[in-house]
Amino acid sequence: MTTSPISESTCTLTSDEIARIDAYWRACCYLAVGMIYLRANPLLKEPLKEEHLKKRLLGHWGASPGLSFMYVHLNRIIRERQQEAIFLAGPGHGAPGVLAPVYLEGTYSEIYPNKSEDEEGMRSFFKQFSFPGGIGSHCTPETPGSIHEGGELGYSISHAFGAAFDNPNLLVAVAVGDGESETGPLATSWHSSKFLNPIRDGAVLPILHLNGYKINNPTLLSRIPKEELTELFRGYGWTPHFVEGDDPMTMHETMASTLDACHAQIRAFQQEARESGKATRCHWPMIVLRTPKGWTGPKSVDGHKVEGFWRAHQVPLSGMRANEAHLRQLEDWMRSYRPEELFDDKGRLIPELKALAPEGTMRMSASPHANGGLLRRGLRMPDFRDYALQITHPGRVRAMNTKPTGALLRDVMAKNMDNFRVFGPDENTSNKLDAIYEVSKKLWLCDYREEDADGGELSPDGRVMEMLSEHTLEGWYEGYVLTGRHGFFATYEAFVHVIDSMYNQHAKWLAICEDIPWRARISSLNLLITSTVWRQDHNGFTHQDPGFLDVVVNKNPEVTRIYLPPDVNTLLSTVNHCLKSRDNINVIVADKQNHLQYLDMDAAIKHCTKGIGIWEWASNDQGSEPDAVMVGCGDIPTKEALAATALLREHFEDIKLRFINVVDLFTLQPAGEHPHGLSDADFDSLFTKDKPVIFNFHGYPWLIHRLAYRRTNHAHLHVRGYKEKGNINTPLELAINNEIDRFSLAIDVINRVPRLQVAGAHVKEKLRDMQIECRNYAHEQGIDKPEVDEWVWPF
Amino acid sequence: MTTSPISESTCTLTSDEIARIDAYWRACCYLAVGMIYLRANPLLKEPLKEEHLKKRLLGHWGASPGLSFMYVHLNRIIRERQQEAIFLAGPGHGAPGVLAPVYLEGTYSEIYPNKSEDEEGMRSFFKQFSFPGGIGSHCTPETPGSIHEGGELGYSISHAFGAAFDNPNLLVAVAVGDGESETGPLATSWHSSKFLNPIRDGAVLPILHLNGYKINNPTLLSRIPKEELTELFRGYGWTPHFVEGDDPMTMHETMASTLDACHAQIRAFQQEARESGKATRCHWPMIVLRTPKGWTGPKSVDGHKVEGFWRAHQVPLSGMRANEAHLRQLEDWMRSYRPEELFDDKGRLIPELKALAPEGTMRMSASPHANGGLLRRGLRMPDFRDYALQITHPGRVRAMNTKPTGALLRDVMAKNMDNFRVFGPDENTSNKLDAIYEVSKKLWLCDYREEDADGGELSPDGRVMEMLSEHTLEGWYEGYVLTGRHGFFATYEAFVHVIDSMYNQHAKWLAICEDIPWRARISSLNLLITSTVWRQDHNGFTHQDPGFLDVVVNKNPEVTRIYLPPDVNTLLSTVNHCLKSRDNINVIVADKQNHLQYLDMDAAIKHCTKGIGIWEWASNDQGSEPDAVMVGCGDIPTKEALAATALLREHFEDIKLRFINVVDLFTLQPAGEHPHGLSDADFDSLFTKDKPVIFNFHGYPWLIHRLAYRRTNHAHLHVRGYKEKGNINTPLELAINNEIDRFSLAIDVINRVPRLQVAGAHVKEKLRDMQIECRNYAHEQGIDKPEVDEWVWPF
Ligand SMILES: Cc1ncc(C[n+]2csc(CCOP(=O)(O)OP(=O)(O)O)c2C)c(N)n1
Ligand SMILES: Cc1ncc(C[n+]2csc(CCOP(=O)(O)OP(=O)(O)O)c2C)c(N)n1
Ligand SMILES: [Mg+2]
Ligand SMILES: [Mg+2]
Repeated sequence: MTTSPISESTCTLTSDEIARIDAYWRACCYLAVGMIYLRANPLLKEPLKEEHLKKRLLGHWGASPGLSFMYVHLNRIIRERQQEAIFLAGPGHGAPGVLAPVYLEGTYSEIYPNKSEDEEGMRSFFKQFSFPGGIGSHCTPETPGSIHEGGELGYSISHAFGAAFDNPNLLVAVAVGDGESETGPLATSWHSSKFLNPIRDGAVLPILHLNGYKINNPTLLSRIPKEELTELFRGYGWTPHFVEGDDPMTMHETMASTLDACHAQIRAFQQEARESGKATRCHWPMIVLRTPKGWTGPKSVDGHKVEGFWRAHQVPLSGMRANEAHLRQLEDWMRSYRPEELFDDKGRLIPELKALAPEGTMRMSASPHANGGLLRRGLRMPDFRDYALQITHPGRVRAMNTKPTGALLRDVMAKNMDNFRVFGPDENTSNKLDAIYEVSKKLWLCDYREEDADGGELSPDGRVMEMLSEHTLEGWYEGYVLTGRHGFFATYEAFVHVIDSMYNQHAKWLAICEDIPWRARISSLNLLITSTVWRQDHNGFTHQDPGFLDVVVNKNPEVTRIYLPPDVNTLLSTVNHCLKSRDNINVIVADKQNHLQYLDMDAAIKHCTKGIGIWEWASNDQGSEPDAVMVGCGDIPTKEALAATALLREHFEDIKLRFINVVDLFTLQPAGEHPHGLSDADFDSLFTKDKPVIFNFHGYPWLIHRLAYRRTNHAHLHVRGYKEKGNINTPLELAINNEIDRFSLAIDVINRVPRLQVAGAHVKEKLRDMQIECRNYAHEQGIDKPEVDEWVWPF
Repeated sequence: MTTSPISESTCTLTSDEIARIDAYWRACCYLAVGMIYLRANPLLKEPLKEEHLKKRLLGHWGASPGLSFMYVHLNRIIRERQQEAIFLAGPGHGAPGVLAPVYLEGTYSEIYPNKSEDEEGMRSFFKQFSFPGGIGSHCTPETPGSIHEGGELGYSISHAFGAAFDNPNLLVAVAVGDGESETGPLATSWHSSKFLNPIRDGAVLPILHLNGYKINNPTLLSRIPKEELTELFRGYGWTPHFVEGDDPMTMHETMASTLDACHAQIRAFQQEARESGKATRCHWPMIVLRTPKGWTGPKSVDGHKVEGFWRAHQVPLSGMRANEAHLRQLEDWMRSYRPEELFDDKGRLIPELKALAPEGTMRMSASPHANGGLLRRGLRMPDFRDYALQITHPGRVRAMNTKPTGALLRDVMAKNMDNFRVFGPDENTSNKLDAIYEVSKKLWLCDYREEDADGGELSPDGRVMEMLSEHTLEGWYEGYVLTGRHGFFATYEAFVHVIDSMYNQHAKWLAICEDIPWRARISSLNLLITSTVWRQDHNGFTHQDPGFLDVVVNKNPEVTRIYLPPDVNTLLSTVNHCLKSRDNINVIVADKQNHLQYLDMDAAIKHCTKGIGIWEWASNDQGSEPDAVMVGCGDIPTKEALAATALLREHFEDIKLRFINVVDLFTLQPAGEHPHGLSDADFDSLFTKDKPVIFNFHGYPWLIHRLAYRRTNHAHLHVRGYKEKGNINTPLELAINNEIDRFSLAIDVINRVPRLQVAGAHVKEKLRDMQIECRNYAHEQGIDKPEVDEWVWPF
């Protein structure tokens, strides 16, 4: 669909209405300045004195007036058109501009009674802002109505789309910084409109905040001709509407009529699609709001331009202590909003203005969508046991680990066709999850070709989201769960690093939410990390990077979970658990290729419930002390550790080995440090207090030491893992290079079991010869020796 | 500058020339298929049999023919117009399409004599591709002419611009995948053209490879109307030229004339600017090449469309073993290129075709720009000692740590105005490096406003690169050093995670280069990580993340370096060292705020040279055994550790404390694991074998355990660091929350020194009281107690 031309010139408002809107906006600006500067005298009932000011002035003024401007105008649309809406501030550092209207519409005082709608409440509201023990200077989780903190720039649009998906009646308004627009994640996220289905999804209304500046620089988008900017957004698939100027009254008029026009266009697109039942790609409206940075603030300070320049970014006036002139300038600035006209004597917004805000949950700050846990319904789940692979003997058959999970996800999808989505960057088929397409295709609203019918799996109402942008997918997914829904994201292990910082920020958001009683719990973020380091036959070194886990472990243990299920059934059990969990980030590592299968479903459930355990069938130390403990963690490392165990038992008749598998990585941490951590007693009895432990790990080996360095037997813990020794290799060759292969592990045991240290020399020679043979065979034939490739557990 | 309309219709080539170009391209395609499939019978002298095939078929066909098509046509431009050029393949997985022309022009055989230009050489060239012990399937460092591996998608354009900067005679042609274009980093990197100065920089010619597909999906850009695509690129500031079709002969014509037109336009822009001496922003030409994916490959396989569909992405025909029909189809496909017309009996490209390639270093595969170390000149360096802060007594004065480094960088800039650049995302002033602007401004080619004159620091020939995209900056910087130049990148600590994966990929590139004798050594990548976790007064929790170091340490120790200089002079010495180093990634952590100063320049140099050392002046264990060892690593942690030392000495007259400071983090690792690692003997004598060690660390505490878990005294190593306990805090409050503050550290010592465990109880109480007082003061006043804030070393 393309836009029908809509006139923006006819003003929708009477001059009275404009005056009221302007007054409400002035109230916002007044509060924003108050938050940055004051700790007393909030209504300026007495002349401003130094002692009324905070000792450290912190916060960002520049973005604030523009954000409030948007908010106030959106309020009118919400009221007049009964439009449910939420608001995201891309430049979340402009929080004063958001907190102000949130306070004015009463939500803040409802949630935080101390910040009441009166003089003392206002004082306390001012003081707490960006103040130790108070609230942060961004749209943090403490901010009612916020699902987007905006501390790290780049994700506002993708978060907004995530919120709009499957919320047909919702309007998600999103302020995008013109600086933020220069980031990569933001630049590609404009394409999200190609994934918005006008029938079942809500609308996203981006407001590009073209205030011209960043911290210290002009922005690119503000310094190219308007025609070029128009082409850019039309090229991205949007219909830009410009609201430009600095005269408040004219700007209110233009903004109001433009918002009316945009809203009408949105409704028209939706109506057309919903009535015809035909979803097509819409060239949705967006607004380019070009206003001065720090609008209405000091025009200049000490002879330097401030309003409309980058100098307005943070605190435009400072150093009051030494500078009476600055103090007076601040007072003049605050009084320019005429607070006495806006607030009554008690500090309450006058009723006439109060009436401009929507009511109840129609207030953007009180929308349940922005506290998604309130709306969250648990998933309807099929029984994951039904997807089990039948295993009669451990370690004898091979299967693709992710494939049955694809079938599970398919049926979860089928049962939850309005609140579950699957995300992946062009790789769901490659990752063997393609069973999903049986019930829901990949969402596609761009052009179709004839050939798409043969395996394209595209549909305008698909619920599988595929775009080659890990950032956009992660952003959508976060927005989707933050508004109370569920999802699943599968991605290549090496490239999950692309979203390291998004993981960090989401983990921080969740950690803070743990301490905010009014934030209802939301679905966990489930990340399946696949196409892992050990099987990069097609791709080589650049695709070998298991280091995401090292990023994950640094975050709050209340939030972080890591699972490495070694086979089909443990993966199913893990995924089932993760889909039901809340407030976590679940990272699941499992490769997509054919792997040996170990546990039947019963055993898998028990094993996953414990998270770590001895595999009886692979151990022969029953009733005695083991010579050594072998540990596998991850699919390939477990197989190699088992093969090493078998080699050792074949060569040393009387050797006693215990075999442990770890699914839940955090069991390794002490119980006091992570809720999943094993007690020392349990750990000691599994790992012994003094026997050599050979730990074969999926990732970088040091991670295990980082988790387990406090354990009794740490001195004998010997970890193998990926050490960046890779190139184009066969699976076994790669294992050998990094010493996680069966031969290296067997040698490790021989070296560490005292009675084998001398006696084992002959066997060690033999094992080394086998290693060399295997490598030579690979270089000759391009594949691994069949007896290695087809190795099965012999006992 | 905008484009003058250039006609692309008149063909530049005779039909003979076209036929030759087509033959050369067929030779490329033939080789590409050969690489994917064959290990014998390279010239198809006998009918193709199963035994000629590799046992595992690996590689990506889909992108290859298009890449070769570009390469072959670029060769003509290079020859005819004496245009120096290099080629970057965004979809580096299409390496067969690049390796083929590299081999045909002889470079491959010159560098790898075994891969000679004859039948046996060709066989060996085929076999090694994506084969164990051979070369990878991307444009890896082993590929002559490559500076861009293209394993992780998204950085082709930014790398290309980095190569073009300060190379006025170079044309950097860059193939961009249409899938790659969906990534965030790529999407914003189109804006790079706004930073290309036509006088002193070379040109970048992007060729968007609109082959319509990714691995399993259509691409967004190929499924929107051509007008929309045109608007998008015009909006990005480019002038798109379309070359579309699938008939080779027509396509050769169009490509040739389009390339001529683009090249003429590039030259015209350059000439105009160079003659007038006025550099303005140009709307540079770019090419949109719309051809079928897997062009000239099998049209369909088993009834499914392959050419022009995503099925062409990897190996279009497989399962030959069981399938004679597929084998015949493969043979027909290969023979369709008529190899007998292209290669002589010995397997040499016929002279008529050979003549189409440029010669010597004009070959893109032999360009010294693509082996930048060959061109690299060391920096002309001022004496860093000249920027020293005068220190008469340690720990008494305060200064901004990064500021003098700004002055040093300024003078490095002044001395190297054609091969040094400074990169930063809008934060160089915020990071206190603004002295640079005295000699070179921020590059700005977009519109100017009057107010820019007052502090804008903008200039069309600035050498400081500021854009709000960490991705683009890092990509530029990598491209710049890979082509033999130098640079420096400063960025906020929390947001350096945005480029985690770029770091990973560059580290992998460098690690591989260590083993490639013909790759000359390049300048190190220098990353200054500032605005660190401990001083986020303005920003709070989202800006607190010292975890980049945990990503850094996983990569090859030959490449990785981490420094945490605690003050001005150690930072100067570190930066000086880093700017001279080669083949590393140097990560320097130093905050921008006011910090206590410890070492005069002489002491700083000695300290940095050792990387770790006892601070005599802060220790009082001379001539005796210390009760405990205090360690500071990082600016704030060092200060707090010193303050704890002082507190303890004030409270316990006879306590003996040793104070160690760590600048070079890798000294903590065993010597066998990192070239900077201390020997165990040295480590033991510093840290003792059995005394309690209280280690106050800048980052996440576990990182220290990961590095030092093998050390003798590890059991007594007690590390404090950031534990994600943050919000809006004063510096001391944040330290207290994470227990890196002076009081917590002093208590740590009391708890661990046996003779204080009981006797110290009273002091512990007092310290706890002080902690509480400090926190309360902060919550009351919004700042830290002056006696804490202004604390100086008392001895
Ligand atoms: C990824 C990232 N890089 C850098 C920063 C540091 N930073 C904070 S605000 C800002 C400028 C933002 O400019 P803009 O988006 O235009 O916001 P506004 O003008 O509304 O303040 C920068 C660079 C950040 N927050 N996130
Ligand atoms: C950041 C990143 N995400 C995912 C991948 C996995 N991947 C490899 S190739 C590919 C498709 C590339 O499509 P395109 O750029 O159009 O290349 P071409 O069609 O020329 O093969 C994908 C998704 C990757 N290499 N990098
Ligand atoms: Mg801005
Ligand atoms: Mg493509």
